[in-house]
Amino acid sequence: MRASAYPLVDAADAAALVLEHTPVLGPETVALSEASGRVLAEDLVASSALPPHPASAVDGYAVRAADAGRTLRVVGESAAGRPLFAQVDPGTAARILTGGVVPVGADTVVMVEDTRVDGDSVTVPAVLKAGTNLHRPGADLRAGELVMPAGTQLGPAEIGLAAALGVPRLQVHRRPRVALMSTGDELVEVGETPGPGQIPDSNRWALLAALREAGAEVRLLGIGPDNANDLRKLVTGALHDADALVTSGGVSVGTHDLVKPLLESLGTVHVGRVKLKPGKPFTFATLSEGRLAFGLPGFPVSSLVTFEVFVRPALRKMQGLVQLQRPSLQVRLGFHAQAVGDRTEYHRVTLRREGVELIATSTGSQSSSRLMSLAGAHALVRVPPGDQGISAGSVVEALILSLP
Amino acid sequence: MRASAYPLVDAADAAALVLEHTPVLGPETVALSEASGRVLAEDLVASSALPPHPASAVDGYAVRAADAGRTLRVVGESAAGRPLFAQVDPGTAARILTGGVVPVGADTVVMVEDTRVDGDSVTVPAVLKAGTNLHRPGADLRAGELVMPAGTQLGPAEIGLAAALGVPRLQVHRRPRVALMSTGDELVEVGETPGPGQIPDSNRWALLAALREAGAEVRLLGIGPDNANDLRKLVTGALHDADALVTSGGVSVGTHDLVKPLLESLGTVHVGRVKLKPGKPFTFATLSEGRLAFGLPGFPVSSLVTFEVFVRPALRKMQGLVQLQRPSLQVRLGFHAQAVGDRTEYHRVTLRREGVELIATSTGSQSSSRLMSLAGAHALVRVPPGDQGISAGSVVEALILSLP
Repeated sequence: MRASAYPLVDAADAAALVLEHTPVLGPETVALSEASGRVLAEDLVASSALPPHPASAVDGYAVRAADAGRTLRVVGESAAGRPLFAQVDPGTAARILTGGVVPVGADTVVMVEDTRVDGDSVTVPAVLKAGTNLHRPGADLRAGELVMPAGTQLGPAEIGLAAALGVPRLQVHRRPRVALMSTGDELVEVGETPGPGQIPDSNRWALLAALREAGAEVRLLGIGPDNANDLRKLVTGALHDADALVTSGGVSVGTHDLVKPLLESLGTVHVGRVKLKPGKPFTFATLSEGRLAFGLPGFPVSSLVTFEVFVRPALRKMQGLVQLQRPSLQVRLGFHAQAVGDRTEYHRVTLRREGVELIATSTGSQSSSRLMSLAGAHALVRVPPGDQGISAGSVVEALILSLP
Repeated sequence: MRASAYPLVDAADAAALVLEHTPVLGPETVALSEASGRVLAEDLVASSALPPHPASAVDGYAVRAADAGRTLRVVGESAAGRPLFAQVDPGTAARILTGGVVPVGADTVVMVEDTRVDGDSVTVPAVLKAGTNLHRPGADLRAGELVMPAGTQLGPAEIGLAAALGVPRLQVHRRPRVALMSTGDELVEVGETPGPGQIPDSNRWALLAALREAGAEVRLLGIGPDNANDLRKLVTGALHDADALVTSGGVSVGTHDLVKPLLESLGTVHVGRVKLKPGKPFTFATLSEGRLAFGLPGFPVSSLVTFEVFVRPALRKMQGLVQLQRPSLQVRLGFHAQAVGDRTEYHRVTLRREGVELIATSTGSQSSSRLMSLAGAHALVRVPPGDQGISAGSVVEALILSLP
């Protein structure tokens, strides 16, 4: 047993190094039904105006504003999808339904509630304003207008826009394919009865959920073999169709840790230890053809916190997202936060509203094995190394996981 | 053509009515791999302590604190999954790797960096404190402790906790099954060339994304037939295996609107119009066996805003979530917000950080057809009806869709 040969890298420097080596994945075409959450790889430009024609916003009568106060002859009806091919001349009106095309000649729509109908005649109010109750062609988008630039993440409204423009498929960035492996002689499958000194492989399921939430497609490799040759075979095989390898466990310096030597033999290890609590043994390597390898520590909280700090931003970069980090908000600390020694600490907190402020409460013991410190946490507060800590009552920046 | 027979219901009253009629769906069992985002339908209680045994947090030597400063004989090694079955007597030490069980007799772990090793002997520092560098059994969870109550939404940490406790499957609430249909004679499939007065059916794809984001399983019914009998057959068939029907379009009062009469014949229409902008024609009905029907307006923004205000909270209640609404934060209005007439308006805004504050900027024209007003929006600001509006510079509550 020896002390680690890897220098302790500052957490922020390690995070920057990871992103520096992270590629943006190429484009693929997806149908609108599969576009949610994906990121545009091309600008979307309006090929035509929206709305394409003047459309009524209400049920009523399409008239000329100049005919205010008059009783008009109704010449027909324009319903959505059933336009009236006659025009509205002075002294006439057309019945119109919501979404119906406003006929040529008419310049305003009167709501049915504001009219008096008598057979084929309709009497309209004494004051009318042109352009009322209708959507003008091109009012929402002009032909040729940039609708969404490349890098836009697609949600319901963005997908709706593409659909409204008649675009059934979009060019988006590929999602990262990640091979996920747990390592450790102590691990048994969840549901099996652990023997002496054994524990269930919980990191696999926690990281699977975290990876999918971050947009990755995951291939589960299970618990890695404890022999270097078999491990190498499994990993090189899996890397054929993966953009990244994520492992948990096996990156401490003990004699049975096989991950670091494997990554050293397959590529370049850029980070082997970080000044981070939890997560000191975090390892990052680049492998052939731009593939990345993340060796996360085995303790459950350490693996999820290093995932947040290093892996999630990289997965977001791969998918073409511009905003790589969690959003942050200023919060007031409801407790004294203290880092240990020379390591940056990500303290897990819950938030509650107090007037305009968000008050952060510690989730309790921040032990690297205690998942209860992350369960229900709303945010991570970065506590810089040093003896001083951050006093209760201070306002600090918090990385928001979810809002209360 | 007639004015609607339905009274205009206050938006908040309509939202309360919807939730009052919304059932919580029954439980089902899912594997951990499929548990992400789901909501516990049972309390999760720790069947055993976590950690189950005293585990080393570092690589080093397990010793007795009372042996501080001494040179100790190394009696063996305890690695993760390979516990040492000897005990640590006074004057002895055990090599220990991260995650390894601390042998009986030892009460502290010394990091390898802090030791001097010479053959089978190790010299430890002059000051040692019992309990250092190890995780005590039960320190994270005691056997019998409530880990997560029913109603907890499962994320990576929560799934990791269940896995660490050896629980491979969880009882969660069913996800709502939703049948989604667009109506309107003006609609063509996205990708087809619209004829005169026609437009692509964009709501289907926007609502599909919104429904899935909210946790629903969606069955697409496409564009509904324009004849009452065929429509009725399609809907009653789809309702056999759906918890809710969501339609867009066809709820205005025009002669060709078939959705309201259909819902009237199939169940009870509780809401037929709301004082909401956009979204006045929103319709809500209960059908047989607790099924719900949401008739959303056809204009794209109207359908997505009424989805946010009425449908999403209902889908969250169905899934067993406790927090039904979007989280809200106080933001400062960067513009004067004005509602029209007697209808509550949901104004779409983007947010930007300025010191501790979030400043809300309008997304521009709030026309019910203009999806650009929702694309990229971070929040919805509720503007109460009335002539006064809300002055620029006011601090208001905003429903957060995403953070900048």
